[in-house]
Amino acid sequence: MIKLRARRYLSDSLNNNKFRINLEGATMFKVLDVKTSHRVEMIDITLKINSLLLESGIKGGACLLFVPHTTAGVTINENADPSVEADIIHKLNSLVPAHSGYTHAEGNSDSHIKSTVVGQSVNLIIDGGRIVLGTWQGIFFCEFDGPRNRKLYIKFIET
Amino acid sequence: MIKLRARRYLSDSLNNNKFRINLEGATMFKVLDVKTSHRVEMIDITLKINSLLLESGIKGGACLLFVPHTTAGVTINENADPSVEADIIHKLNSLVPAHSGYTHAEGNSDSHIKSTVVGQSVNLIIDGGRIVLGTWQGIFFCEFDGPRNRKLYIKFIET
Amino acid sequence: MIKLRARRYLSDSLNNNKFRINLEGATMFKVLDVKTSHRVEMIDITLKINSLLLESGIKGGACLLFVPHTTAGVTINENADPSVEADIIHKLNSLVPAHSGYTHAEGNSDSHIKSTVVGQSVNLIIDGGRIVLGTWQGIFFCEFDGPRNRKLYIKFIET
Repeated sequence: MIKLRARRYLSDSLNNNKFRINLEGATMFKVLDVKTSHRVEMIDITLKINSLLLESGIKGGACLLFVPHTTAGVTINENADPSVEADIIHKLNSLVPAHSGYTHAEGNSDSHIKSTVVGQSVNLIIDGGRIVLGTWQGIFFCEFDGPRNRKLYIKFIET
Repeated sequence: MIKLRARRYLSDSLNNNKFRINLEGATMFKVLDVKTSHRVEMIDITLKINSLLLESGIKGGACLLFVPHTTAGVTINENADPSVEADIIHKLNSLVPAHSGYTHAEGNSDSHIKSTVVGQSVNLIIDGGRIVLGTWQGIFFCEFDGPRNRKLYIKFIET
Repeated sequence: MIKLRARRYLSDSLNNNKFRINLEGATMFKVLDVKTSHRVEMIDITLKINSLLLESGIKGGACLLFVPHTTAGVTINENADPSVEADIIHKLNSLVPAHSGYTHAEGNSDSHIKSTVVGQSVNLIIDGGRIVLGTWQGIFFCEFDGPRNRKLYIKFIET
């Protein structure tokens, strides 16, 4: 299927290597590469987000996460017991199965729906030079149509 | 049914024309009018958000979207193939049907539930004077109890 | 079950009383205590958020809400008719029942799943010294594994 869109110019510049290097070099806007290995998968990226924050040197403010894909998401949940991730994935797959009489020809409608249910953006608070998280919380990149090479965009706002 | 609420004063000022004009005149806080034409519908507002951003002149920062309604939402998803929107709507309607033994007397409980599942706020990243979106992403206002005249609130934060 | 995690150091400081007092004393980062009384419950915290905003003296900007728990969430919905909350809770319990063959040994997998579906962060817009909300909107802390003593983190960003 050929995908046509009038406004591709709005985002195509991100696929330009030069611009991408520029993004990654900026202090406040970071790009994280995430390599996924299953069709539906939650990947703990907490340590990576904190490393990027340390690099930025920001002590207080906000951290906005944004997933630039239409078949992936981002969420916060427990990263202590992997059975929590397994149960989340199992229930999402049961509520929004891979095959369910969808019309979208690419066969990944469930991935798009999961993306909208889980969400593509999260905001985090920065205090004392660290992302403020609860005791059991981790930050998860959610793959809903992998395996793929993905990106996560991170914006730090100093206050 | 008469709706009573103690704290209506918190938001009533927004229904005052003078204040609304003031909002729309501000640089950083914009109000977008969205006219919907179906009960459940996803409306691509990507170009309109980008136009407002261009007007603001902001080159880098964040863009917060907020839906001031309890039976609508906002999400990011594919805006290339309309069958994706159709599949998202169909699955939401199947998981949260219009009639399902609800107690709320207005008959739109499904709309309130969809609003909470999809979400009323999204944060976007601004870089190079544009909203940073993935290749296939568009910004959608989600109507869950239309047709109606709706608003979307947009806050630009320059960094 | 013993929970092991390599990165607990990232958040443990929040359980230190001294640090918590420091947080609560800061102008821009506030901690709200929320006492819940049911297993699944929505608690209207709109007035409390507005009180904290008044204390901060901020007239315009953004307000980021973050739930530092893995079995709770935050949402915006109608706070006029309590039957809306009842219908949201009933539908969430029906889509994600308390018992459904989960593997997580603590018996609260449904609470974790609900947290990811509803979301742990919301962003609000501040204008004219108040949180900008629609006529019928309220801010709800969502308890999915109560009753418990909970926290909500609030970050005000002045612009």
